[in-house]
Amino acid sequence: MKPENPAPIQWHFAQRVQQLQSSVIREILKITVRPEVISFAGGLPSPATFPVAQMQAAFDAVLSRQGKVALQYGPTDGYGPLREWVADRLSRGGAKILPEQVLMTSGSQQALDLLAKVLVDEGSKVLVETPSYLGALQAFSVYQPQYMSIPTDEDGLIPEAVPAIGQDARLLYALPNFQNPTGRTLSVERRAALVEACARLGVPLIEDDPYGELSYRAAPLPRMISMNPQGVVYMGSFSKVLTPGIRLGYVVAPLPLVQKLEQAKQAADLHTSQLTQMVVYEVIKDGFLDQHIPTIRKLYAEQCQVMDAALTEHFPAGVTWTKPEGGMFTWVTLPKHIDSMKLLDEAIAQNVAFVPGAPFYANVPESNTLRLSFVTVPPEKIREGIARLGALIKTKV
Amino acid sequence: MKPENPAPIQWHFAQRVQQLQSSVIREILKITVRPEVISFAGGLPSPATFPVAQMQAAFDAVLSRQGKVALQYGPTDGYGPLREWVADRLSRGGAKILPEQVLMTSGSQQALDLLAKVLVDEGSKVLVETPSYLGALQAFSVYQPQYMSIPTDEDGLIPEAVPAIGQDARLLYALPNFQNPTGRTLSVERRAALVEACARLGVPLIEDDPYGELSYRAAPLPRMISMNPQGVVYMGSFSKVLTPGIRLGYVVAPLPLVQKLEQAKQAADLHTSQLTQMVVYEVIKDGFLDQHIPTIRKLYAEQCQVMDAALTEHFPAGVTWTKPEGGMFTWVTLPKHIDSMKLLDEAIAQNVAFVPGAPFYANVPESNTLRLSFVTVPPEKIREGIARLGALIKTKV
Repeated sequence: MKPENPAPIQWHFAQRVQQLQSSVIREILKITVRPEVISFAGGLPSPATFPVAQMQAAFDAVLSRQGKVALQYGPTDGYGPLREWVADRLSRGGAKILPEQVLMTSGSQQALDLLAKVLVDEGSKVLVETPSYLGALQAFSVYQPQYMSIPTDEDGLIPEAVPAIGQDARLLYALPNFQNPTGRTLSVERRAALVEACARLGVPLIEDDPYGELSYRAAPLPRMISMNPQGVVYMGSFSKVLTPGIRLGYVVAPLPLVQKLEQAKQAADLHTSQLTQMVVYEVIKDGFLDQHIPTIRKLYAEQCQVMDAALTEHFPAGVTWTKPEGGMFTWVTLPKHIDSMKLLDEAIAQNVAFVPGAPFYANVPESNTLRLSFVTVPPEKIREGIARLGALIKTKV
Repeated sequence: MKPENPAPIQWHFAQRVQQLQSSVIREILKITVRPEVISFAGGLPSPATFPVAQMQAAFDAVLSRQGKVALQYGPTDGYGPLREWVADRLSRGGAKILPEQVLMTSGSQQALDLLAKVLVDEGSKVLVETPSYLGALQAFSVYQPQYMSIPTDEDGLIPEAVPAIGQDARLLYALPNFQNPTGRTLSVERRAALVEACARLGVPLIEDDPYGELSYRAAPLPRMISMNPQGVVYMGSFSKVLTPGIRLGYVVAPLPLVQKLEQAKQAADLHTSQLTQMVVYEVIKDGFLDQHIPTIRKLYAEQCQVMDAALTEHFPAGVTWTKPEGGMFTWVTLPKHIDSMKLLDEAIAQNVAFVPGAPFYANVPESNTLRLSFVTVPPEKIREGIARLGALIKTKV
């Protein structure tokens, strides 16, 4: 019954995936799971913040009350009450957001994939920050866009640069709050200017906001979707405020776009787990996040401060880093002659890890940069790891 | 802060999604949720078969023992013990399957999307059955293939037709067990001949097998992956043997392909819920499926028999239908002059629903066909619904 001498297949992959590689970060993470490594490389939230008991109680409640519904196929657009919850929460920003504008996704990574699938043809112009979130670049690159990098400074991307390069772009992708990888915050004035620039060009502005709730200061800055709900596409996630392993995010878009995204999602995975959506709704419906999120902010703010102090103590002159006002990351700029990719090899030999900055650039990489996460490493280990890294860098300057 | 008179965006969608529409089936399902409608339109498994208590106990156990791990980001390829379980189970067919060949997916719909994303360029030749699974056509069509329809008869697709049309095809997609939509089974001889034909052409053979375990007879027929593991890509799912709402499937492929699929999955949704994978493993690891699956088979076999008897009693001469040996569907062929899409409107007016056959054809539709599912409708309702439908058809012949 077996074919005689079947020749091994000569795999012919589609052009769109020939350049595709595994994420540098995920490869580094595989190396750095050794317990002796102090790793600032992760993009993982701290498991200390996971509300395990609440999730457990909610799974129990949902399966007891509505098990057969939760375990059956569900609608592609998502679980109705959760979509309403998202719309209500976003509507607090002043502009009315309808539940029909909300599409639940399998993590916000899926929203990135669907957006590019629906908006980007081969060669389409796509505007991104310099540097930009690696997961977005990975998702978009499959659809073979032409990237245009928007210059940035300490206040985030520079909206004044957009009109000159944004004509006919299919989308502009921005992460305004505590950006991954830089930790920078886009100022209020720039938010307004960016919304205005995109509206003038008729270019959809993608506002990716996984960390917005993790502000260390008082009130978070206004969301761009609230400034122009017909021109901004908002992406949110439960990964950083609840737990990432369940893979639950959402995208909020004007109706013509969200309908097309829903069709694309139907072809991509039918729908996101009903059970997961019902359980998350069960956990959050009575205001749990309002008590829970401040505990995450407090933890991350403390560890951010420890890292900043350690950087000040141990890193030599000529090295600079960002001062995050929320989120999970600090971005370090080394003297120009130090290549952080090469530095990583030496650092790992000394049991400390980070993510080199080059992969975060869509066009011209700045290879003297690196990303540090401070949220999963306890304070004494942050000090130790930064001391080791500082000593290593001092041998180079 | 709001832009002045922002013009509404003129949405420019990517070419690949311009033809994309919501699935006909999902649109029909929206109509037929009214409780007075007897719906044979669903592709849903019977919720009576969902092991709610076992799932509940497993969520409790996993979250109690390993909550922080289950709720954290996980590996893209999937939960190790579950990948081993899949590899072991498939290896029973005689050919050794390695856990490294298994990629866990967000339902098997995602495997369809990833396969086309990785293998299909615009205009690539893709071979499908006549008719073929609608969800596969939806997933593939996004990547703009050129479809070649393989002729079929009562024993499934005709392998002898493949060499003439299969040259340079990027994949051949087949659903050999109790096919969706026809309920047909590909004979053993044809499986061997198909594997042979694909191996000679060097064309990857996609074996989609969501219903394989739901055989009403003794032993299921051998899997094609066991005949040539280097040339066959196998797709499995927990949707029909456990529960669909959790969205868990898998694809098993030769290493060069599975590695590319993993990279594409990383860009598409990072990974499938860790928690769900750990819970499913907890439920099935000690042989639960060996007791559970026979209860599903028994229920579906009984209802299949009820439907066949009702069709015999109520449908007029000139109408034929398939005799499924497993799975969830019967396929009806009406006299040529009856268009089942038009028939559906009249049927819904009489509170009975089915899925018209035309959307299942990649090239030339046969509009006098329709699909009936018998698994979610109780026996007395099957008889009543088929009687109504038969009376309606009698007015047309």
